[in-house]
Amino acid sequence: MVTGKNILTKQIVLWREGTKETAADAITVEAPMTIFVNGEELVTLLCTPEDMDLLALGFLRSEGLLTSMDEVAALRVKEREGLVEVELKDRSNLAARLYGKRTITSGCGKGTVFFQALDALRSRPVNSEITLAPEQARQLMRQLQEKAVLFKETGGVHSAAVADTKKIIFFYEDIGRHNAVDKIIGRCLLEKITLEDKILVTSGRLSSEMLLKAAKLQLPILLSRSAPTTLSVELAEAMNITMVGFVRGRRMNIYTHEWRIA
Amino acid sequence: MVTGKNILTKQIVLWREGTKETAADAITVEAPMTIFVNGEELVTLLCTPEDMDLLALGFLRSEGLLTSMDEVAALRVKEREGLVEVELKDRSNLAARLYGKRTITSGCGKGTVFFQALDALRSRPVNSEITLAPEQARQLMRQLQEKAVLFKETGGVHSAAVADTKKIIFFYEDIGRHNAVDKIIGRCLLEKITLEDKILVTSGRLSSEMLLKAAKLQLPILLSRSAPTTLSVELAEAMNITMVGFVRGRRMNIYTHEWRIA
Repeated sequence: MVTGKNILTKQIVLWREGTKETAADAITVEAPMTIFVNGEELVTLLCTPEDMDLLALGFLRSEGLLTSMDEVAALRVKEREGLVEVELKDRSNLAARLYGKRTITSGCGKGTVFFQALDALRSRPVNSEITLAPEQARQLMRQLQEKAVLFKETGGVHSAAVADTKKIIFFYEDIGRHNAVDKIIGRCLLEKITLEDKILVTSGRLSSEMLLKAAKLQLPILLSRSAPTTLSVELAEAMNITMVGFVRGRRMNIYTHEWRIA
Repeated sequence: MVTGKNILTKQIVLWREGTKETAADAITVEAPMTIFVNGEELVTLLCTPEDMDLLALGFLRSEGLLTSMDEVAALRVKEREGLVEVELKDRSNLAARLYGKRTITSGCGKGTVFFQALDALRSRPVNSEITLAPEQARQLMRQLQEKAVLFKETGGVHSAAVADTKKIIFFYEDIGRHNAVDKIIGRCLLEKITLEDKILVTSGRLSSEMLLKAAKLQLPILLSRSAPTTLSVELAEAMNITMVGFVRGRRMNIYTHEWRIA
């Protein structure tokens, strides 16, 4: 059994074929992480408490509060307290920049900003002419699964990776599927890696929020083991993004702009 | 193929064993739903656009803005516009009641309120002495899976149900696992069904937020096909909630208060 700071081993009761027994079980660690921006509390995420700096950066990038590391004056992680403090060079009022954003807790939406984002994005479709052979898509999904060690041990996390047409570049696992992608985004921001010619590979479902995230980054190809929704298909169509779901074994469903899978 | 307002059939490209072909695919519908309370915009959820009244009621209940239908003066659903308007008898300022809540978009957390909720809950553990035989737990999970028609067609939704020890009482599917549970909560609120002696059955993972939701409702037993986290185990332990995960075939993992599974 893999142990590490993301796994806790606990004695639990297993019921198997009519018999109860006690055994050790590997449980994935979940912890709160609060992001402060210029001294103001922004949000508390529940996450896999690793690479908190990347999660904070990726979250800020996804929320449109940050587009480059040049805007960051300082970043401090207080891992034990579950705090990340980000100092932005732009000291303008955070509330003003977040104007229109609404509380959400259901894991599936944003407020008014959702519609604003839709409108803004539709005017800026993805241009990349990158293509990917189906066999390469399968290979990338296989690499994702091979790397998913925390999932294999606990069953309680999602995984996400950014890849070129041949191999995975960065890979993260997190209890939140959005967190896993935000850690990727944070890492790419930190290392100045452009996403406009890359592929996002994920274990999680392709909801409209995931498509919005990808569209903001101009990601041309999304691969998932899971299902899309009508709204994500519609967004991918409009944004010129190639969306592939149910990449499993020797099959996959290409929902939009299938010319890139050639 | 089941068709209905929650499924859209679309022509997509399937890749199978090296060959591309065009075929019809069933995709689950995702749509935004905005909740107004006393004329003020509260939140936009992305959801399966059915039973919007229940989702709105359950969301408000989960957020602590509502505890009984007696507090509701009126409720209007404008399905085509994706709007639910709720009039509460208490006209006091919504912002004041939401004080301390923070924007979240990652699907896995709340802000300051998360810690406040933790503290409040820990002082009010679940008292129910209800028990459930392992065989009954299996049966309930089987019933959940049998009812999961939308999942079988699209692979893109979660399911949740409330049950007594023998059978499922209400069942909902939604693209969001929290939405599915909130629809259950809304229905129980509407029909004045107490949850303190019931069982929550869900396809989704048992994160700390799901435990907080259950704890607020004093639900004594949670059954899931999926994994828990360290924080949800800790909460279930403290709240005297029996949490059972990986209920699959003739096995299940009992994480806390196993005396109720007897």
